[in-house]
Amino acid sequence: MTLDIQLAGRIDQQSLFHPFTAITDLKADGPTVISSGKGVRITDIHGQEYLDGMAGLWCVNLGYGREEITEAMAEQSRKLSFFHAFNGMSIDVTIECAEALLKRAPVPMARVFFGASGSDANETQAKLVWYYNQLRGKPEKKKLICRWNSYHGSGVLTASMTGLPGMHAPFLLPMGPIVHTDAPYYYRKAPEGMSEREFSRHLARELEALIAREGADTIGAFFAEAVMGAGGLIPPPEGYFEEIVPILRANDILLVMDEVVSGYGRLGTYWGSQTYGLEPDLITSAKGVTSGYFPMSACFISPKVWDVIESNAERAGLFGHGYTYSAHPVGAAAALAALRLIDEDNVLANVQEQSDHLFSSLRARLGDHWAVGDIRGKGLMIGVELVKDRATKEAFPMANRTGRQVLKAAAKRSLITRALGDTLVFAPPLVINRAEVDELVEKFGDAVEAVLPR
Amino acid sequence: MTLDIQLAGRIDQQSLFHPFTAITDLKADGPTVISSGKGVRITDIHGQEYLDGMAGLWCVNLGYGREEITEAMAEQSRKLSFFHAFNGMSIDVTIECAEALLKRAPVPMARVFFGASGSDANETQAKLVWYYNQLRGKPEKKKLICRWNSYHGSGVLTASMTGLPGMHAPFLLPMGPIVHTDAPYYYRKAPEGMSEREFSRHLARELEALIAREGADTIGAFFAEAVMGAGGLIPPPEGYFEEIVPILRANDILLVMDEVVSGYGRLGTYWGSQTYGLEPDLITSAKGVTSGYFPMSACFISPKVWDVIESNAERAGLFGHGYTYSAHPVGAAAALAALRLIDEDNVLANVQEQSDHLFSSLRARLGDHWAVGDIRGKGLMIGVELVKDRATKEAFPMANRTGRQVLKAAAKRSLITRALGDTLVFAPPLVINRAEVDELVEKFGDAVEAVLPR
Repeated sequence: MTLDIQLAGRIDQQSLFHPFTAITDLKADGPTVISSGKGVRITDIHGQEYLDGMAGLWCVNLGYGREEITEAMAEQSRKLSFFHAFNGMSIDVTIECAEALLKRAPVPMARVFFGASGSDANETQAKLVWYYNQLRGKPEKKKLICRWNSYHGSGVLTASMTGLPGMHAPFLLPMGPIVHTDAPYYYRKAPEGMSEREFSRHLARELEALIAREGADTIGAFFAEAVMGAGGLIPPPEGYFEEIVPILRANDILLVMDEVVSGYGRLGTYWGSQTYGLEPDLITSAKGVTSGYFPMSACFISPKVWDVIESNAERAGLFGHGYTYSAHPVGAAAALAALRLIDEDNVLANVQEQSDHLFSSLRARLGDHWAVGDIRGKGLMIGVELVKDRATKEAFPMANRTGRQVLKAAAKRSLITRALGDTLVFAPPLVINRAEVDELVEKFGDAVEAVLPR
Repeated sequence: MTLDIQLAGRIDQQSLFHPFTAITDLKADGPTVISSGKGVRITDIHGQEYLDGMAGLWCVNLGYGREEITEAMAEQSRKLSFFHAFNGMSIDVTIECAEALLKRAPVPMARVFFGASGSDANETQAKLVWYYNQLRGKPEKKKLICRWNSYHGSGVLTASMTGLPGMHAPFLLPMGPIVHTDAPYYYRKAPEGMSEREFSRHLARELEALIAREGADTIGAFFAEAVMGAGGLIPPPEGYFEEIVPILRANDILLVMDEVVSGYGRLGTYWGSQTYGLEPDLITSAKGVTSGYFPMSACFISPKVWDVIESNAERAGLFGHGYTYSAHPVGAAAALAALRLIDEDNVLANVQEQSDHLFSSLRARLGDHWAVGDIRGKGLMIGVELVKDRATKEAFPMANRTGRQVLKAAAKRSLITRALGDTLVFAPPLVINRAEVDELVEKFGDAVEAVLPR
């Protein structure tokens, strides 16, 4: 690094267009410039260390500085620094990676399609839904049902699928055959006095009504994250998928599970689909597949979908879809190393253990705080929703930016969290240990109490 | 690699869904499984070496096995294996990379926005066009003019922008506010006897008519590759951009140059925009920015566009767009190493020299072949269009798959080319030397003559 520490902030602001940032905030506060990372910790250019409660962007599941992944990447890059799988070409390590992924799928899957990001993977899935239904002679089964508060990506279609109005209006979205249905947001959306199970049935009835309104023969797929991430950290209420899935099956609607965040152990099972007992027709994965060390996505295609594609291959001819990096050998090597470490580190057992500890410690420390409305999540995907009034669930005024204040107070205490509105979120590396969980809770508790004194 | 060589082909076919591949071809021929690469050459799992006339997918510009890039990636991965630039966070090496890129821009540019692929970058550009025009109070200036035969990506929008019917119909595309205009395909589309210059004026009149028909106040941007790549290797005819650009300016239509292939030296200048004297409002780059070693894209935003974004930042609030890998430190390190090598290797001078040699050698070897209809291109982006009849330009019957036959004959002679229909394409690493160019031409000449005897 040759960048002058004093200049870094200024050069940042003169050069870099930041994703998901308010330019005025950046101007007011300057960037926090990260320089190194090890385990669950990152360090900025001034030498300030932080406990990264977000694993980067829900992705550095195995922690920073894992020599095993870096070495696997370097070795592969020396051997074959790039190649592709267009036109019947292939790569040894990519084949090995596809096989390893299929072995780990939650239900038997037929093929893997690679890309470089969750966004590109969900674009692929949408195109596969249309491809599949057209091959079946049902091109009109095209609409995609997505949920408010979902996050599926930042491409034009995937941002449209995403159920966040702030990602729509500024870009004149949504665009495309997308229908949004209600979020399974029990804390905010369930009518007073309704149980989780009843709310799930309520949402199922809403979905049925939507399908009847639109016409089942116009609907291709239902996209869902296992636990909603960027849209507010929303786990499904009890019985949600049990209620929803039969409706999809009855209407010949594909179930696409977006496991970009939940895949590879975050919920304490290898897949969110296992947590909720699902048999998806398509699965989207990314992030954790390489622990974020290399941009890679992997779409899983079920035998049901693949059989239609394969049996129509002769008349379909060339499959006209793919990305330059739809087979990158270095990504495959990174993934193989990460998959190995998920097993060797006993990640699933650790997630279950630390999840229990994190939930109980948060509840012990903040459960009785007047502003803590809800502590929710699954595995190591946890949100704390702050409210002005616990009894009425009245939110703080938007202008207060309470969530952001707490985020900044946490950063002052060298803890990274993320504020989704006034819901503060944790999705730490899955290798976090008990002492680090304790530290996270202590710092977060202090931050909440500093902004919102008891 | 633990993959059994004998099993590799079978496991490939049971695991991997190949991009841009006909499943029936893959079944008939099996995959060609690449295992290593060095310089301009790659080697398959059986030890067969090939001269890679395509630099992977027009991307391995500096050749395979460049220790400088691999080492820079490994060093950075050890230091900081992932971080992001959401919410005002930043990374030292990413800032340095953004600054280095801006210094190399063909015209003064204000900001860089990173992603992981050319597809995601063009999705970003489309969203920026809409964002910019909405901030200017012109939300109805939304349509994107793209050209038939263009290639802009495989996302739902970018595949729709792409002007290749084979990428549309199977997926029920195009979708979105896209209008296609004529390809500047002089060899095939110019009326008999029309000069290149006249054809350019003809296309400009067509564009003007299109704009008048649609209404200039409904059109946001014009997207163009400098030289069309995947759509048939089509350089602009003489005077093309000189004719087109004033029309765009007169109608307040942004010029977005897709330099995913042409950027970083492929045409013998650093940018295709320099080759054709352009001042784009937005530039899309990817591939060569890391020589394909790491998935990365970089969008350049001009002061004209940035000023509108920045001056409206307060009311716009959060910029709700971005990708997990929109700042990856290891990609930034790979790019910095690649940018250094482009200078150190005198890539631009080499491209100019080898381009001249490749063109003249191809013409010497094949210029008088009865089936060689056109040899065209720019820099190290060259296509040879094969025809049944040179005089009438009659194409071979599609069913013959002549291009594919030549590709296979070349592969037998250990040369990788690419067949875009019956146009065979070369885009070798930009560090190819004279002896390697001679070898390429000799093998290609033999392949053409084996399939199409003189």
